[in-house]
Amino acid sequence: MSAIPRDQWYVAAYGSEIGAELFSRTVCGEPVLFWRTRDGSVTAVADRCVHRRFPLSQQPSRLVDDQVVCGYHGFTYGADGKCVAVPGQARVPRTARLPRYPVVEQDSFVWIYIGDPENADAARIPRAPYLDSPGYTTVAGMEPLKARYSLLVDNLLDLSHETYLHGGYIGTPEVAATPITTEVDEENGVVYVSRHMDDAECPPFYAKSTGLQGRIARWQDIEYTPPCLYKLHSRIAPVGSVPRPDGSDPDAFHVEVVYAITPETEHSTHDFWAVARDFALDDEGVSAFLAENNRTVVLQDVEALDVLERVIATEPAGYQELSVNIDTGGLAARRMLQRLVSP
Amino acid sequence: MSAIPRDQWYVAAYGSEIGAELFSRTVCGEPVLFWRTRDGSVTAVADRCVHRRFPLSQQPSRLVDDQVVCGYHGFTYGADGKCVAVPGQARVPRTARLPRYPVVEQDSFVWIYIGDPENADAARIPRAPYLDSPGYTTVAGMEPLKARYSLLVDNLLDLSHETYLHGGYIGTPEVAATPITTEVDEENGVVYVSRHMDDAECPPFYAKSTGLQGRIARWQDIEYTPPCLYKLHSRIAPVGSVPRPDGSDPDAFHVEVVYAITPETEHSTHDFWAVARDFALDDEGVSAFLAENNRTVVLQDVEALDVLERVIATEPAGYQELSVNIDTGGLAARRMLQRLVSP
Amino acid sequence: MSAIPRDQWYVAAYGSEIGAELFSRTVCGEPVLFWRTRDGSVTAVADRCVHRRFPLSQQPSRLVDDQVVCGYHGFTYGADGKCVAVPGQARVPRTARLPRYPVVEQDSFVWIYIGDPENADAARIPRAPYLDSPGYTTVAGMEPLKARYSLLVDNLLDLSHETYLHGGYIGTPEVAATPITTEVDEENGVVYVSRHMDDAECPPFYAKSTGLQGRIARWQDIEYTPPCLYKLHSRIAPVGSVPRPDGSDPDAFHVEVVYAITPETEHSTHDFWAVARDFALDDEGVSAFLAENNRTVVLQDVEALDVLERVIATEPAGYQELSVNIDTGGLAARRMLQRLVSP
Repeated sequence: MSAIPRDQWYVAAYGSEIGAELFSRTVCGEPVLFWRTRDGSVTAVADRCVHRRFPLSQQPSRLVDDQVVCGYHGFTYGADGKCVAVPGQARVPRTARLPRYPVVEQDSFVWIYIGDPENADAARIPRAPYLDSPGYTTVAGMEPLKARYSLLVDNLLDLSHETYLHGGYIGTPEVAATPITTEVDEENGVVYVSRHMDDAECPPFYAKSTGLQGRIARWQDIEYTPPCLYKLHSRIAPVGSVPRPDGSDPDAFHVEVVYAITPETEHSTHDFWAVARDFALDDEGVSAFLAENNRTVVLQDVEALDVLERVIATEPAGYQELSVNIDTGGLAARRMLQRLVSP
Repeated sequence: MSAIPRDQWYVAAYGSEIGAELFSRTVCGEPVLFWRTRDGSVTAVADRCVHRRFPLSQQPSRLVDDQVVCGYHGFTYGADGKCVAVPGQARVPRTARLPRYPVVEQDSFVWIYIGDPENADAARIPRAPYLDSPGYTTVAGMEPLKARYSLLVDNLLDLSHETYLHGGYIGTPEVAATPITTEVDEENGVVYVSRHMDDAECPPFYAKSTGLQGRIARWQDIEYTPPCLYKLHSRIAPVGSVPRPDGSDPDAFHVEVVYAITPETEHSTHDFWAVARDFALDDEGVSAFLAENNRTVVLQDVEALDVLERVIATEPAGYQELSVNIDTGGLAARRMLQRLVSP
Repeated sequence: MSAIPRDQWYVAAYGSEIGAELFSRTVCGEPVLFWRTRDGSVTAVADRCVHRRFPLSQQPSRLVDDQVVCGYHGFTYGADGKCVAVPGQARVPRTARLPRYPVVEQDSFVWIYIGDPENADAARIPRAPYLDSPGYTTVAGMEPLKARYSLLVDNLLDLSHETYLHGGYIGTPEVAATPITTEVDEENGVVYVSRHMDDAECPPFYAKSTGLQGRIARWQDIEYTPPCLYKLHSRIAPVGSVPRPDGSDPDAFHVEVVYAITPETEHSTHDFWAVARDFALDDEGVSAFLAENNRTVVLQDVEALDVLERVIATEPAGYQELSVNIDTGGLAARRMLQRLVSP
């Protein structure tokens, strides 16, 4: 029984990862072959030749004029997945066709639909426009996680772990100590978790990037749209500063921390992360600092979650966790994911 | 349910691999111990001490005067598998005996019978006399394959893959483009696949070894006797040349490419390969060239088939292949193997 | 179905391994966290945070004033396992408590009880006082074994293997050739195996440590208290020497070889070994020689038993061993262990 929801959109890659070369990534257990065709669009088809299942991403398979030629026996496919040539005979069997995945390139991501393509509705893809907007500068990356995606969901929905796992980077005592509020929008399928620290230590991550000294107001507003897109709206401002009634917020620094949580298999995950900011837009030093620091924080999570996956693999059946107030958001996310798995 | 036929002869080794030292190889999942006794014959017994299953090939086990002494507690066995000494007591239990395998050394190979020794009929072993004949010079080797043996059978029965996987070595466009003829001799258990290219590019493998320039007649006549012995009778000649009515063929170069396909386990295979030629018999440069080039080609297959084994390991149950004309020989071989598995 | 007896005492560590730092070891499949509290005693609790199962031995978890702070979300526990702090809330759930293991530090070992703590009776722990007595000098170590504990029990109960596996170290022809006597004390749960060689070659292990030349009387008296403690009372003396009627034995050298056999998992074992002697007490050269030589012998066993574990992993179900007289002690031990597993 799979724990991965189907009939869903998932981030498969950054658009920048895919060019005029064969690119393969496994998404939700399905091996997918990508390339950018000469018209600039991204195509995604099953990464297995229909003949003898050779991976079309595996050398000596190759791309020739927007067609992929299998490196084993030369079966050749167009960008729509249709087989156009077979060795030793002129007739191409009608059923020789690679399954094709619906693709949308948006907000710097390549989204693909895992499930029945008939059900793919691009309007349902959640947005993260700051990753690709003029008012923001973004640093981003992807780390492979040898742990099930639900462990990363748990991790990101409960930021009290910043104090312990990321002390010295983004964690301070106030994060763990400040209570959260949680809201669940069942209709639109979103979990919100908020923690507003009005007088908190400024962690190095924000002190060095914003230049703020001393104590700060630090707001963390999580918006998670299961299964894949997680946004942390982070607001850092001088103590006492609040947004103006008109919504503007000139004294604050805004950082949009975005994760795309994409199952690779039942027990491994593509951990896409991006940090968009609305300040110091052209400061390459700040970009380099945030990229390196956020990657360090992500790798601290990866190490911890890889440990948890190994723990789960050897523990007795029926092991019970104990949940407390900080887990309210994570438990809401689990329930929502469970319904996506078994509607 | 095993996919490996029992009550069959398999090539376990080259005769040259086995001397007056303990030699171990797993055949069809059975660990077998070999050595050459002082009378020059090869003996094959189970590679497990009857006492506490210690491998008799494992140091400090050792061979003393045609007897093998277990390195754990000293149980000692003759070349017939009978236990002749036990520690701490004079009496040797009557049932202390290693199962012994029927062995035939022939055509440079050591064949052993896997199954009920009562059924072993040496007359059923298929022949490859050129590997050990005065009119031929042979180069040979063995590569371990981390893939089920049936993937190697598929590979060798459909040589259209030479064009793609072995381009620049033995593949040219004509191999994949030329149709095959397939014959099945059910009574004798042989599959024949022929591809006669009458006007074809000469691949480097044959150009450099024969000295032929320009286009050639290239005939590939496969003769596969399941489960183990595969022979490719390869004929290379000037365009237009055919064998004479009396069967002689003085203008042609003949290369006998022989594979012995021996399952190690359900998911790994011993890939024995040999190339015998009837020309340039004493030319060591040609021998070195053919040995290096054929090994390169075999390793290209090994890499591709190891990938396929990993692909199969993670794909959903019930995955369907699509077969075309070039697969006729391979499908006939599969049916014949299936009958050997479930008679 | 586990092959490991529960409701038993096992050696988890040497006392010297555990200080004022977090120390983790898996015993009988259970991950256990140890540290030495400021009052000098050893505490042992489950090495999993009750919240989200993070290992408390895993950095950045840390020990602060005899309390362990989880490195993931900061759950904090006292040495009794009771949770004393939870992030984001003042109330600590009543059920937040790490299971605690009964611990006894004795004879240089840290023993823990695996099973229902209610049944833990420290009086049942078998003794090995020489490991920690003024009249003896001890060298000791622990080697990880990638094999089930019962293979080590088999190994140690039948020392005829010394002749073959440990030739040149502690094995001589007389060990395998001399019959054993076996006694089983069902009431106290002890297996005794004795082999008295009255005129035997002196192996290097004893020649170099005692200085004895020529042939010796060599007595091996095994006392195994399943599941964990194995003692080999080894007596080396000039030929003809026997203990006096009053029990004193001034002409002999006594070596107490002690093993603690602790399952790590169903298929791996902690192989604790110690060699205590009543001679050359202050001779560091003898200590270094015995430590290095005994470790070599243990590693020879480890190599052989690791091989056997891999052999068992791939052999067909229902494989049968053949037992002879030397196995009497080992078979008695197996029966006793079987009763401990299924009382």
